[in-house]
Amino acid sequence: MQASELIRDNADIYVGWLTEACSIPSMSGETDALKEMSTWVEDKLTSLGATIERLTVPDAPDAILGTLGRGERSLLVYDHYDVQPVDPLDLWNSEPFEPEIRDGVFFARGAADNKGDLVARLAGLDVHRRLHGGLPYTLKFLIEGEEEAGSSHFPDIVHRYAERLAADGCVWEGHGIDHAGRPELVFGAKGLAYVELEYTGLSEDQHSSLAVVAPSPVWHLVEALATLRSSDGSVSIGGFYDDVVEPDEDDMAMLRAFPFDEEEEQRRLGVSHFVGNVTGVDFLRRYFYDPTCNIAGIVAGFTVPGRSKTVLPREAMAKLDMRLVPNQHPDDIVAKLRAHLDEHGYGDIKINRFSNEAPVRSRRDSSIGKATISAAERVFDQAPAIAPMMLGTGPMSYIAADLGIPTVSPAGVHRPTSNIHAPNENCRVEDFLRIAEYTVEWLGDFATID
Amino acid sequence: MQASELIRDNADIYVGWLTEACSIPSMSGETDALKEMSTWVEDKLTSLGATIERLTVPDAPDAILGTLGRGERSLLVYDHYDVQPVDPLDLWNSEPFEPEIRDGVFFARGAADNKGDLVARLAGLDVHRRLHGGLPYTLKFLIEGEEEAGSSHFPDIVHRYAERLAADGCVWEGHGIDHAGRPELVFGAKGLAYVELEYTGLSEDQHSSLAVVAPSPVWHLVEALATLRSSDGSVSIGGFYDDVVEPDEDDMAMLRAFPFDEEEEQRRLGVSHFVGNVTGVDFLRRYFYDPTCNIAGIVAGFTVPGRSKTVLPREAMAKLDMRLVPNQHPDDIVAKLRAHLDEHGYGDIKINRFSNEAPVRSRRDSSIGKATISAAERVFDQAPAIAPMMLGTGPMSYIAADLGIPTVSPAGVHRPTSNIHAPNENCRVEDFLRIAEYTVEWLGDFATID
Repeated sequence: MQASELIRDNADIYVGWLTEACSIPSMSGETDALKEMSTWVEDKLTSLGATIERLTVPDAPDAILGTLGRGERSLLVYDHYDVQPVDPLDLWNSEPFEPEIRDGVFFARGAADNKGDLVARLAGLDVHRRLHGGLPYTLKFLIEGEEEAGSSHFPDIVHRYAERLAADGCVWEGHGIDHAGRPELVFGAKGLAYVELEYTGLSEDQHSSLAVVAPSPVWHLVEALATLRSSDGSVSIGGFYDDVVEPDEDDMAMLRAFPFDEEEEQRRLGVSHFVGNVTGVDFLRRYFYDPTCNIAGIVAGFTVPGRSKTVLPREAMAKLDMRLVPNQHPDDIVAKLRAHLDEHGYGDIKINRFSNEAPVRSRRDSSIGKATISAAERVFDQAPAIAPMMLGTGPMSYIAADLGIPTVSPAGVHRPTSNIHAPNENCRVEDFLRIAEYTVEWLGDFATID
Repeated sequence: MQASELIRDNADIYVGWLTEACSIPSMSGETDALKEMSTWVEDKLTSLGATIERLTVPDAPDAILGTLGRGERSLLVYDHYDVQPVDPLDLWNSEPFEPEIRDGVFFARGAADNKGDLVARLAGLDVHRRLHGGLPYTLKFLIEGEEEAGSSHFPDIVHRYAERLAADGCVWEGHGIDHAGRPELVFGAKGLAYVELEYTGLSEDQHSSLAVVAPSPVWHLVEALATLRSSDGSVSIGGFYDDVVEPDEDDMAMLRAFPFDEEEEQRRLGVSHFVGNVTGVDFLRRYFYDPTCNIAGIVAGFTVPGRSKTVLPREAMAKLDMRLVPNQHPDDIVAKLRAHLDEHGYGDIKINRFSNEAPVRSRRDSSIGKATISAAERVFDQAPAIAPMMLGTGPMSYIAADLGIPTVSPAGVHRPTSNIHAPNENCRVEDFLRIAEYTVEWLGDFATID
């Protein structure tokens, strides 16, 4: 019997599992619901033959580690059992924790991020066991409970249980299925250094007439910001690009094969060109391999639209978010920002640090890379879209970089229409079953691919 | 009998007038109270022998024109009968419209701005009449009711009643008495061009990871702003300084005589130096004769202090307030700003205009200039501090420039401690009586000085 057939025959059961999982309101910070959800995961993994260990560090929900199979090689699978809050509740068309299927679409908080993937993978494991019995390698399901709150204790968990988590490959939380129905696979994530630049230059706000002699803190910050970027959009912080690894031949091949509708993206953004006027492979090279220095926010003085107040503000603040690529490191980049400001006469501007995520990427020719690619080619109707890194950031680096495990985020249930983190989060039932089938295939391929 | 003696003998009466005036809550926008207050002014002027005319334009409180005396020459006196709102009310130590004298200080909204001056001048007129009878020139009291709301209809009033307002000199709303007790006289006001720069570059806010290819509206605005100013603090808008009139010999003499405690001002501002590191006469020259381009506000994206959100904002906005000096003109300056932005690649940034006040100054050697200076030298214990312009802006230009009337704002009742526009507004009773005496003297001097 084929995997796809077995899944379709048991679709009600597996969708039932998803309904159970999505009925538990395991939102970040909801201790009881998170506990209930971790028990659900534990029970389900146990029923699939796994041995369970709870990975604990102080002040964090337990992560669940379920281990099964036997053999010399091992594969780690990462998902999370917590979900985003549901506000604004009045924009939901059904209750977020009372799952509803309408026209083949499953609506609930967590349907796409990430209970849909988690349960599809559990279903895939169940089907694989029914078809093939025990796995010829060690499979470790690692399900954490704090991803939507920034995985703030995940590094502690990973470092404390490093030996238990060691593996030859890692399948990360699912990426998605794109507009055109292509399965997406990514092999890394950009890093992030997020800082607040803060400058107070006067004891109090002053009447703006005094700007004639009183140094303006706002001008000081604006002029400092202007030194951080060149007119072509490149970052001018001294040494910013020093550690950037250029794409190699295999990377360029990946880019040449990557499907991307530039016109559609320009339409969506409402722009007539991209930064640096790039197109084609140059566009994709910038898209995936360039770091950024973005102003996420800036504020000073009087900001009510359409009104005037003549004030010389005492202080000014800007938030910079810098997306980093291998082998940049957030600590080093912030130190370079500090040195740049000092050298340009802005030593008095204070830097407050927030996020601090290292960039990471794995090669696509690892065993798990090859397994997830070959399985995708068989299961989906369209060729996969393979990207070196996602543009965003996640805690992947603790596994892929700190533990040195080749990692891939293969196609998951979510589509651009899935409303992740938003009201009416959803996944298509058809996609859920397809991801279960895909899981059966990469579980199998990993056993045979070197 | 001396003026000072007569005033002190009748102090209770004149303070009673001030109490009456300050009991009427003639805040901007309060139509009934404004009407009541204009009637009070009308009645008081009538009792002092004036003929009253109400100057009306649509949608504005009436201005009161009271004319008395006879002769070829004429003098215009400008004050206003409206006051600022009183919020926050809980910071007042007594009711804003129930005047209270505590330790010789008169507390009420309007005590300093500008009912204190208005009533002191009416008292001075009364005393002058008692001592000297009718005036040998035409005296015109012009009391408007919309100053605290920006005098938005004042230009209409001035232009409509230009013939009626024609005069050989104008005494403007009082300036003040400085920290050291010196009477302050100013002969002009800076102008103001206030604009909002607005730029929307994306259809929606985007996840900040897209900053790698999507042009950032915030960077665009910050880079545009940075082109407006040089590192030495001077304004880089092309042609900005073209029409600035340099100070002449008499101006420089005024500056050399002007008392200013730079260290105290630096302490108050919390700075270690002034813009351009100027001191002494260079400082005063900049202070009074330089125009500015100040950022009164800027805002884009996520601005909550101490938190992070990774967003690429779709729009950015900044407010610029440019203080102008003779002979700059706000229309011309805004046109130059537009041309500058266009030439530097920022033609897509929108300019929304707000305030639009021309700068203006009169020479100190006009008849009314000489009269107010000589009277100040006799009445006050300390030599007057004479300045070419106030740093702020007011509707003085409609009288001084549009009607071509030499104008001075002589010492009035307010001191730096008077809490103008703030809770617990006040004036010292002693200052109120002194300004009444000062009024008697300049009313007299104007009759005899050429």
